[in-house]
Amino acid sequence: MSNEVNMNDLIALCKRKGFIFQSSEIYGGLNGFWDLGPPGVVLKRNISALWWKDVVDLRDDVVGLDSAIIMHPDIWRASGHVDHFHDQMVDCRKCKKRFRIDHLETDHCPECGGELTEARQFDLMFKTFVGVAEESGSVAYLRPETAQAIFAQFKNVLSSSRMKVPFGIAQMGKSFRNEITPRNFIFRSREFEQMELEFFVREEDREKWFEFWVQDRFDWYMKIGIRKKKLRLREHRKEELAHYARRCIDIEYEYPFGWKELEGIADRGNFDLTRHIEHAGKDLSYFEEQSKEKFVPHVIETSAGLDRTMLTILADAYHVEELEKETRTVLRFAPAVAPVQVAVFPLVKKLADPVRALERDLRRWYKTFYDDGGSIGRRHRRQDEVGTPYCITYDFTSPEDGTVTVRDRDSMEQVRIAMDQLRPYFDEKFQYPEKSPADA
Amino acid sequence: MSNEVNMNDLIALCKRKGFIFQSSEIYGGLNGFWDLGPPGVVLKRNISALWWKDVVDLRDDVVGLDSAIIMHPDIWRASGHVDHFHDQMVDCRKCKKRFRIDHLETDHCPECGGELTEARQFDLMFKTFVGVAEESGSVAYLRPETAQAIFAQFKNVLSSSRMKVPFGIAQMGKSFRNEITPRNFIFRSREFEQMELEFFVREEDREKWFEFWVQDRFDWYMKIGIRKKKLRLREHRKEELAHYARRCIDIEYEYPFGWKELEGIADRGNFDLTRHIEHAGKDLSYFEEQSKEKFVPHVIETSAGLDRTMLTILADAYHVEELEKETRTVLRFAPAVAPVQVAVFPLVKKLADPVRALERDLRRWYKTFYDDGGSIGRRHRRQDEVGTPYCITYDFTSPEDGTVTVRDRDSMEQVRIAMDQLRPYFDEKFQYPEKSPADA
Repeated sequence: MSNEVNMNDLIALCKRKGFIFQSSEIYGGLNGFWDLGPPGVVLKRNISALWWKDVVDLRDDVVGLDSAIIMHPDIWRASGHVDHFHDQMVDCRKCKKRFRIDHLETDHCPECGGELTEARQFDLMFKTFVGVAEESGSVAYLRPETAQAIFAQFKNVLSSSRMKVPFGIAQMGKSFRNEITPRNFIFRSREFEQMELEFFVREEDREKWFEFWVQDRFDWYMKIGIRKKKLRLREHRKEELAHYARRCIDIEYEYPFGWKELEGIADRGNFDLTRHIEHAGKDLSYFEEQSKEKFVPHVIETSAGLDRTMLTILADAYHVEELEKETRTVLRFAPAVAPVQVAVFPLVKKLADPVRALERDLRRWYKTFYDDGGSIGRRHRRQDEVGTPYCITYDFTSPEDGTVTVRDRDSMEQVRIAMDQLRPYFDEKFQYPEKSPADA
Repeated sequence: MSNEVNMNDLIALCKRKGFIFQSSEIYGGLNGFWDLGPPGVVLKRNISALWWKDVVDLRDDVVGLDSAIIMHPDIWRASGHVDHFHDQMVDCRKCKKRFRIDHLETDHCPECGGELTEARQFDLMFKTFVGVAEESGSVAYLRPETAQAIFAQFKNVLSSSRMKVPFGIAQMGKSFRNEITPRNFIFRSREFEQMELEFFVREEDREKWFEFWVQDRFDWYMKIGIRKKKLRLREHRKEELAHYARRCIDIEYEYPFGWKELEGIADRGNFDLTRHIEHAGKDLSYFEEQSKEKFVPHVIETSAGLDRTMLTILADAYHVEELEKETRTVLRFAPAVAPVQVAVFPLVKKLADPVRALERDLRRWYKTFYDDGGSIGRRHRRQDEVGTPYCITYDFTSPEDGTVTVRDRDSMEQVRIAMDQLRPYFDEKFQYPEKSPADA
């Protein structure tokens, strides 16, 4: 069994099975943009539902927000993005390649030794124009992160929800960065989906909550099926920290292209609220009834990428196995995130009617798929490739004794189960773990 | 009981309870953009989950797509948006007001009789620039609809999913239109969320599927609790039809500002696929194995707005009632869409501990809210305003006999129920109706 994932094989599988397509492919594509096909959408929906469940629904100290992507440009002045969110780039006059200046170690082109141009500044925020004219007064930006809206709406959320510090505001949604070099499939794209939490605390409780969220978020990746051995924590060195951050720990995953950030947990102090207080001239402080104190809360941020989590799940699940007579490609998704949970097959086509009825019944509870094409072995392989944990076969015995076989994707073992026992059987299998499971 | 909804009262309630805030409010707002606060996000999530369940999950002939918002600009050339998606506007030289030329009946200003300027063209698509320079070659647009991505990815979805005509591709997500005059709260905003289905059929089956989807979508609004008497169908007159549409029926709702479109169901022929075949030079036709025929499928489109549905639910649910001693404001949400499903109160604060435990337990199954502030009557009113269908009160009898009272939002009646019977009681209440219920 091998999990040395070849990225090109994974990308080909994603296209073939419909997880991920190049955006606008029939027009030659658009660099840094991707579309999700049928199982990809469901995988994404499952991941985002489990994040929301863990971070919002199961907690009584976190509420949600869903803000507009286009916001008032002053938000990005207050946050520092207008002034600081850009890359300095140089071009090689000889080979025409382009480099980020902070990636260069010499004054000449690292590729061909040619002479480099003066540095030019490239804004990472996408610009657009709101209203009737492309005048500078109407310039707006596509948000480069979801977090700032949480700070800008802090007071509205506070007064409508009557939450008390410590509490959090969570948001998921699209963000956009005009990356010079989008790369590594959906790892770094120009349009992506974030899942962010800003958790507001008293200054003296920062350390405690920082530790809590690092552990909680690390555990979540195991709950959704990522192998512990491929995960690690990496604390930022002092010189790596953004100027506003006091501490930052990345949850990293070992991708086929190396250990990279999957999620960042940061102690942002009260930098952001303070900046919005200054720029908007509004009082965004918090009054604590018990202590009668008024203060600007500090914040612990957890910032995850939905597309990046999806890539991680795909890469972690991807296995090529040498069986006795053949090779099988299998996605070992955790049952709770699998886009198809139960496939239902009639052994032969003439058994289709009762199997269609069974599938319709199961569809009310699970994500199901009906297939009657080709041999059972071939149908199993197709489901292995899309990561379906269980396949049901209805055969000639089924109408007689009311049983079917259920085949397990990973062990490939088959058990015979009464049809009226399928719901309790699957309900247990598809349960979302309340605690992080031991490493598999 | 009154449901003559005053829009300003509804907008004030939405802000006070945290459903909807003006975007970027602390910076003076941004016209045509809105943010959803805590109960607003949950309401939106509930609506979108029920749309997806009805249109995708419970059907075996519809699959999902989730495409990028920024796509190759040639998609909008093929669709006709680059050439045709704009408004002709004139300004009054005297009072400076601006008008859409197709709304004018005279040559002079309808407000002050002043002289009008020459017409100017305003593009409705938001423009941005992808890559390193603001050159015309890098212009891209924020999608003004989700539908075109479905046509552009038709072949990829078809070959990866092996679906057979008739089948549909569904997508929900943000779209953007630079409206000159956004209005009516979230009814017409510049950034909004669509829920669209393109259902591909043989040409001769168009009429049948058109009728099916009109009825199916009409019924859905009743399933999510909208009153039938406020809904109607309106068929477009021939001169109203877009040039590509053969037929279009709007599902309309009677808003406080009049009967307006809530969703459109259109027979688009095979216009869109044909345009993409021409512009991309790719074969997007379908080969039917059974008949051995190759054809470009026709399409029935259902196009709904998520924000508009949310406004409809809010306006439909909003009631002001004169009780004996007071006036109560109540949102009569259907239980399946209510953002808070069960509120849990201790009669007095010293009973908090067991009630917190009860709330934590119920939270695994329902959207719950704990409140121990103020009189029980006041807590009921607060829940009425956010539309909570059931409030549980734990009193001094509860620890003795294991029962609590459950108060119904609409009848305001209270029943005493054993705590271990709450789950079956609520499970029945919160069930999503499989069939459209009779008009309430």
